[in-house]
Amino acid sequence: MTTYPAKQHFVATAARLGADTGVILVYGSETLIHPDSDTEYEFHQNSNFYYLSGVAEPGFAAAYDIGTRTAILFVPHVSADEAVWIGVPPSLEEYRAAHGFDAAHYTKDISEVLGALKPSVVFTLPENASACNAYSLAPVEKLRAAVHEARVYKDDYEIEVMRRANQISSAAHVTLMREARQGMIETELRGRFVGLVLAQGCSYEAYGSIVAKGRNAAVLHYTKNNMALDDARDVVLVDAGGTFGNYASDITRTWPVGPKFTDNAREIYSIVLDMQKTVIEACAPLKQWEDMHMLAARVAAEGLLRLGILTGDIASIMANHVVGYFMPHGIGHLIGIDTHDVGGYPAGTERINKPGLRYLRARRQMQPRMVFTVEPGLYFVDAILAEAQATPSVAQFIDFDVVKHYRSVGGVRIEDNIVITESGNDNLTSECPKEIADVEALRASAYA
Amino acid sequence: MTTYPAKQHFVATAARLGADTGVILVYGSETLIHPDSDTEYEFHQNSNFYYLSGVAEPGFAAAYDIGTRTAILFVPHVSADEAVWIGVPPSLEEYRAAHGFDAAHYTKDISEVLGALKPSVVFTLPENASACNAYSLAPVEKLRAAVHEARVYKDDYEIEVMRRANQISSAAHVTLMREARQGMIETELRGRFVGLVLAQGCSYEAYGSIVAKGRNAAVLHYTKNNMALDDARDVVLVDAGGTFGNYASDITRTWPVGPKFTDNAREIYSIVLDMQKTVIEACAPLKQWEDMHMLAARVAAEGLLRLGILTGDIASIMANHVVGYFMPHGIGHLIGIDTHDVGGYPAGTERINKPGLRYLRARRQMQPRMVFTVEPGLYFVDAILAEAQATPSVAQFIDFDVVKHYRSVGGVRIEDNIVITESGNDNLTSECPKEIADVEALRASAYA
Repeated sequence: MTTYPAKQHFVATAARLGADTGVILVYGSETLIHPDSDTEYEFHQNSNFYYLSGVAEPGFAAAYDIGTRTAILFVPHVSADEAVWIGVPPSLEEYRAAHGFDAAHYTKDISEVLGALKPSVVFTLPENASACNAYSLAPVEKLRAAVHEARVYKDDYEIEVMRRANQISSAAHVTLMREARQGMIETELRGRFVGLVLAQGCSYEAYGSIVAKGRNAAVLHYTKNNMALDDARDVVLVDAGGTFGNYASDITRTWPVGPKFTDNAREIYSIVLDMQKTVIEACAPLKQWEDMHMLAARVAAEGLLRLGILTGDIASIMANHVVGYFMPHGIGHLIGIDTHDVGGYPAGTERINKPGLRYLRARRQMQPRMVFTVEPGLYFVDAILAEAQATPSVAQFIDFDVVKHYRSVGGVRIEDNIVITESGNDNLTSECPKEIADVEALRASAYA
Repeated sequence: MTTYPAKQHFVATAARLGADTGVILVYGSETLIHPDSDTEYEFHQNSNFYYLSGVAEPGFAAAYDIGTRTAILFVPHVSADEAVWIGVPPSLEEYRAAHGFDAAHYTKDISEVLGALKPSVVFTLPENASACNAYSLAPVEKLRAAVHEARVYKDDYEIEVMRRANQISSAAHVTLMREARQGMIETELRGRFVGLVLAQGCSYEAYGSIVAKGRNAAVLHYTKNNMALDDARDVVLVDAGGTFGNYASDITRTWPVGPKFTDNAREIYSIVLDMQKTVIEACAPLKQWEDMHMLAARVAAEGLLRLGILTGDIASIMANHVVGYFMPHGIGHLIGIDTHDVGGYPAGTERINKPGLRYLRARRQMQPRMVFTVEPGLYFVDAILAEAQATPSVAQFIDFDVVKHYRSVGGVRIEDNIVITESGNDNLTSECPKEIADVEALRASAYA
């Protein structure tokens, strides 16, 4: 791959700042140590700083002189004593060239370099404000808003990195489907997944993996991952993705513990797959993201009506947000350096306080180069169903006897990552099978 | 396994405090979020809090009333809304019983419960001082010193957990030796290792794994792990361990990329193995840990004299700490909840400012139930050898032409974890082969 387009990201950010002069100054993360210990937290770079620098190491800073379009990287100095332990670091010039900056200096010289630029105003981020208090600062929310909005639109470099994150993680999902057998512990699958993505160059899990079998899939934030896949009739929901080149992937697959879906599980899975494919088909520039949520809800309502879980007319079901009791989360979110990436709610946009919709992480018009997850699901969560039963306007549309029949399915979710293109979208997760025949073929091979 | 002996740890700590009354009050870690993001850091419990509670979840606190010997667990309250997402938590009584406490309350009731105890003084830790500022506090270093000293002596429960951490990690090391082939990338080995230990129930890597081939092994804190095992003549140094039940393991093995050690590598490896076995043979109650370092240095000096790397008389070589230029780190450290565990330098003990010795992480008399790493190594670090060459008192004992002949070996380290017993010690890492014949048999099987 070519050089990370850090300077272009400074240019894009400055354009959104609407300033002709001034200096942007940002600091990366430092190594974090556990309290009363010398153990380091695994290093994760500040996401905004990574976007503006492409540097994944601790102790760096970066500046951009808006008027002269000069990008300056600040590198921590490594003493000869330290180099004995960590090796001889690259030179300033090597760092400058590797990250595509115009100049490089040591971090100890930041105030001298900034002083020479004589900036009328310094733009920094809220998390760097205290480090920049020697300067005349613009309100810190200005740079934050500009960086967030710039991060929403991924360039070719970012899209290719995210495609690679998806390819690596898809291959790991396929390995799980091909290898997992009845009797294994959920955490064995998580360990296998993490091992595979790390071995292929991912830095870490993009988020805490969920491996939830049977009823555990009805716990939406299940992270214990400590139960056995003891029942071949169960499905197991695996929500896991690796971070590659500091960009996240976020993929969910749900598949039977045994070689085949039970009839119940297949019926629910088919509806979720239909929801997902219908939404992906619809995603295109100028459409509203919240409409994708409602589209998924409509496909779900039709499917649940067919199964007899819902009764009544679809217009009333939709008007009463009944599907929100089976899919309590949103249809998906922006993804990039962060799994739940920034920019989902542009200034002035508010959340819609309705079941399901209130947890939607984005409300905006789709535009080319935005990357979203599309992750419909259907779940049988006892606490939520009890709430539905206690809400007459909702309960009238649900046949709770039929619900009981499907309760053991727990939950099903299918999640891909798509990039919006001029003509529609491109599925970055295309290498991870989700059609029933393909999934069952993989599961059969686990028992062959 | 039985219940974690949290209350016994309070008892042991209170005994070292030397107080008959008062209350110990400690807080566990909270979930930590990345800046300007909703991504959580992987949760790691505060080590002192884990020792006193056995709780590996965020948001807990614990108290111990010294006079009445009452251990009280404080549990964060989960609302019905939160339970929809994370599942229904155990009850207070279930938490109390699971962790072996005398009572359990919600954290929101801490001040009420503490008020009822009317403590004359509250003992807390430096990291909890601000949370406890409503109470009449004893100097926070008092509890810290007492907990640290209590943590030095592992009980049966802790030793068995550490044995399991070692078994799981040893098996992963064996898998690497059995599977790694020329051409693989260092990070593939790290990924495989992490995947294996997570799958067997470890929570995380105990520390950032080092997989360093060839000359990379001469970078003592090498963590890039991004190079290919391209030369069959190289050795690869793998320093990796999993944390199981919140207790660390810390194991290093060094083995050839190809099926057999080269003559050079075998010669260096043999000396390091001799150093390690000699020290382990010597570890026993009442001996001083720094003497183990000097014992390893003496065995190294004898070996390096045989190879012609050193010249001169052994007494002068030892007196001038010449081996410190080939083994710049200490012979080992205490290990427990932390990889570099607390208590290595009891009050009044100072570091010895000599090559090698100055980085020794412990100086104390060995006693039963202490767990140490024994990790001798020999390295050819250009920067350190240049310093040796520039130091006449040291350079006179080194034949730098012979050193050149061994430079490509990079570095060799062999590390086990041992528990001191009444009669000597018990090697927790006994399931990880280190004899040359065993290592070469595993390496041969990778190419079979």
